[in-house]
Amino acid sequence: MWCPSLNRKVYVLRIGHRPVRDHRVTTHVGLVARAFGADGIFLERHVEESIIKSLEKVVETWGGPFEIVKTVNPRHTVREWKRNGGIVVHLTMYGENISDELLNLILFQNKDILVVVGGEKVPSWLYYESDYNIAIGNQPHSEVAALAIFLDRLFKGKELTREFHDAKLVVIPQKRGKKVVKKE
Amino acid sequence: MWCPSLNRKVYVLRIGHRPVRDHRVTTHVGLVARAFGADGIFLERHVEESIIKSLEKVVETWGGPFEIVKTVNPRHTVREWKRNGGIVVHLTMYGENISDELLNLILFQNKDILVVVGGEKVPSWLYYESDYNIAIGNQPHSEVAALAIFLDRLFKGKELTREFHDAKLVVIPQKRGKKVVKKE
Repeated sequence: MWCPSLNRKVYVLRIGHRPVRDHRVTTHVGLVARAFGADGIFLERHVEESIIKSLEKVVETWGGPFEIVKTVNPRHTVREWKRNGGIVVHLTMYGENISDELLNLILFQNKDILVVVGGEKVPSWLYYESDYNIAIGNQPHSEVAALAIFLDRLFKGKELTREFHDAKLVVIPQKRGKKVVKKE
Repeated sequence: MWCPSLNRKVYVLRIGHRPVRDHRVTTHVGLVARAFGADGIFLERHVEESIIKSLEKVVETWGGPFEIVKTVNPRHTVREWKRNGGIVVHLTMYGENISDELLNLILFQNKDILVVVGGEKVPSWLYYESDYNIAIGNQPHSEVAALAIFLDRLFKGKELTREFHDAKLVVIPQKRGKKVVKKE
């Protein structure tokens, strides 16, 4: 476990993907899920293969573990997650604004967490089947940003210095320019 | 001033926009800039009018102030910002990882801040003309997420409860479902 303070699984479910139009945004959701410490992501079955491939390539190059799972039925995924004892957090601008109290409430349950992010419109069942509807500010912005902030608060910033396993490339931080080294 | 602890201008410069392909991502960068407390954004001149319009519509509906400026020459924008006494922070996965020390160094200068975010490739002058090259983790992810985390750390989370001026609509946070009220 890379983060001993959080001994549980955290997965992301990306819902409401619109082919072509959301190509880059869904890719970014996947990249953020991995980079910010989630163990994996569920993507709807109509998500383009090119998105899956580019996420897999990032895992192969920059390390993991990070699981990419296609789901035929997101509602079923949510229900299964709860049936297995996990909690479901839906990030939405209409929810309760994130706070230390809300985060602690989630953390103290010590359960696996499924973080659901949608686009402009999400099905209404999601508001009722999620355990928590949490806003990262009650303003319109981005599921990519909402996911990043939620995971950053959940992992208390430690996710940004996580070491990934089996990385082929590693960045050596620089004040100027780029330095990337190949790992043996 | 909505945030008395940060008595300065913060603008975002989005660089390297690719028409069509980056349509949603650049829109998200603009929405995050506004929602996370920046005073405005510079967009390159080839950014689609539909992006500008959708950002303007959000400001009109959900409030401001938030300025959208087209720049003919991003390098000139960076140089002008510095000439006017401001500092330039470039967010890049190759930079120094964000830390409290680095943030305090920036904050204690009490200068206006231009936050530059690019896409997959940015021109090399940017690494050398920026005052700081800061990584939000040294992993590939998203300029949308990087911007959100940087502004969230800069404003210490207070940006998420900011009140916007002249909003026509305001969300009333809910545990379940949506509640939006019209302001007179």
